[in-house]
Amino acid sequence: MQLSCPMPKLDFDFITLGHGSGGLLTHQLLESGVFKLLANEALDAQHDGAVLSLTGKTAFTTDSFVISPLFFPGGNIGSLAVHGTVNDLAMCGALPEYLSLAFILEEGLPMTAFWEILLSIKAACEAAGVKVVTGDTKVVEKGKGDKIFINTTGLGKVHPQARIGSQYIQPGDKIILSNAIAAHGIAIMSVREGLQFESEIKSDSRSLHIQVKSLLDQIGPDLHLLRDATRGGVATVLNEIARSARLGIQIAQAQLPLDPQVAGVCEILGLDPLYVANEGVFVAFVASHRAEECVHILQAQAGSEAAVIVGEVVAEHPQKVVLRSGIGGRRVVSLLPGEQLPRIC
Amino acid sequence: MQLSCPMPKLDFDFITLGHGSGGLLTHQLLESGVFKLLANEALDAQHDGAVLSLTGKTAFTTDSFVISPLFFPGGNIGSLAVHGTVNDLAMCGALPEYLSLAFILEEGLPMTAFWEILLSIKAACEAAGVKVVTGDTKVVEKGKGDKIFINTTGLGKVHPQARIGSQYIQPGDKIILSNAIAAHGIAIMSVREGLQFESEIKSDSRSLHIQVKSLLDQIGPDLHLLRDATRGGVATVLNEIARSARLGIQIAQAQLPLDPQVAGVCEILGLDPLYVANEGVFVAFVASHRAEECVHILQAQAGSEAAVIVGEVVAEHPQKVVLRSGIGGRRVVSLLPGEQLPRIC
Repeated sequence: MQLSCPMPKLDFDFITLGHGSGGLLTHQLLESGVFKLLANEALDAQHDGAVLSLTGKTAFTTDSFVISPLFFPGGNIGSLAVHGTVNDLAMCGALPEYLSLAFILEEGLPMTAFWEILLSIKAACEAAGVKVVTGDTKVVEKGKGDKIFINTTGLGKVHPQARIGSQYIQPGDKIILSNAIAAHGIAIMSVREGLQFESEIKSDSRSLHIQVKSLLDQIGPDLHLLRDATRGGVATVLNEIARSARLGIQIAQAQLPLDPQVAGVCEILGLDPLYVANEGVFVAFVASHRAEECVHILQAQAGSEAAVIVGEVVAEHPQKVVLRSGIGGRRVVSLLPGEQLPRIC
Repeated sequence: MQLSCPMPKLDFDFITLGHGSGGLLTHQLLESGVFKLLANEALDAQHDGAVLSLTGKTAFTTDSFVISPLFFPGGNIGSLAVHGTVNDLAMCGALPEYLSLAFILEEGLPMTAFWEILLSIKAACEAAGVKVVTGDTKVVEKGKGDKIFINTTGLGKVHPQARIGSQYIQPGDKIILSNAIAAHGIAIMSVREGLQFESEIKSDSRSLHIQVKSLLDQIGPDLHLLRDATRGGVATVLNEIARSARLGIQIAQAQLPLDPQVAGVCEILGLDPLYVANEGVFVAFVASHRAEECVHILQAQAGSEAAVIVGEVVAEHPQKVVLRSGIGGRRVVSLLPGEQLPRIC
């Protein structure tokens, strides 16, 4: 593997059980470069935890990442673990501030892979303006894990104008998708299945807090709800919201933003893009009269150029999501009954 | 397995990949009883994260638990995951307030085992006065994990009198061990090795925040440093502290609190109890003139009856830990070079 930054010299080429002992090898591993790479005042204290000064409302969210393969077009498990938690904070209307970072490594993981993942974590943290302030490293025997699992847990300051929650949703609210859907799932599937395309399909994995901040700065409480459409895709989050708000949701198939190449692969693989995972797309529920403004705000920013209104909240068919097809048909879009794509994030 | 509380009726006897899909099965699993079991206002919101009002100094700490076996005398991975993070917060001088809870389940985990672990989590949280406010559930294919891994990340309010850090340690400070050592590691080893004893050796896994609060209430900034002696045992944490403070540490073997049965098993297995993991023991560094008072405070409480002064900080041999044996010999106690007991927490 070509490293984008030189790896520190280590006595081992692979992770061993001793690296999770809490003893000498753990210290060598962390002090070889991990602490320096991610350095900041709180992490440098190297205590059992970080001590932070937080005020106002704080969002707190956790996510474990168990993706396979670890490396994919557009990112790897390291950048994904940062983006995923940054985005969960953003969906609470919060600006990400601090992360914890916990590794479960499988004995035999190549050091070069670990280092490349760390570099991606650093780059994603810097891009998102978030600091890793505390962490943990465990090692399991070969065959008892899958190379590397990462948990990131995040803290963020809730935007003073945020009033986000399913209780704020009303019939008439417009539903916006922030960008074209299904790219992450298809990028992962392509690697798993060894599919080759004319141009590579890249994961949409990215941080979304800037988009959220812009929306909150400009429309404040008229932004009623945000959710990123990760595992289970857009269909799943819309169903969750419909249930939680006890209202109906209508979306128009013709409006769904979808890259033609991604659409083609979905068709070949027999996947409904509405259920395919995204890592850089959210749904926003906004007061009807601010919807166009929101779309313009999003379209002006990198990573949400394809933002579009895809539907609205209705009083009819509460707790159900209904899709209007291009030729006028209507069908209920239900929760994914089983597992479409395991280990997608 | 005998459940201490009836399990909700589920369509599956074992965890399947679908339970990690984020779709219908995930919902069924969580809504079957998990949310109700752990219910509180923030968790009930069922958003991507919890929104909390935190003020003053907040401690933030993360830990993943990959222990094998999952069930052991004195606890299981669920109670351990709560105690571990509650104690990391306590070691920062904080009272635990909130936890995140993230599961990585292996396909095929029996639902009864998962439910029993959840019940232990609930009981440990109630005992520690801490709330689970956000969570995550992932499932990996059989053979890609080991039944269940748990990450808990905690938030706690730092005690107003806490001035805890290796920079506060001075030569002359006394070192207190809060209780008898090595019980957790030996309890785990006994299960692994199928050892039988006259009376069962139980893990010391427990929350330590009440002890810490009592010390801080009564001696405040004269309490200079706290560390729980988990992976790598007492020897490892003392070495870490000696390095971090750039001071020497002397301990007396004769003072080490050790249950005779635990001592016997250590001898049989060839284990040095100083390196065996604990889950309910901490080391406290305190100003010399308050040390006796601290010992009395601890001895008066359940879980620290055997508290004792075991040594002191010295200006000589900086960054080294020296053990004085019963017959007057001295030896350097170094960091554990490899892995003594993998998957101990």
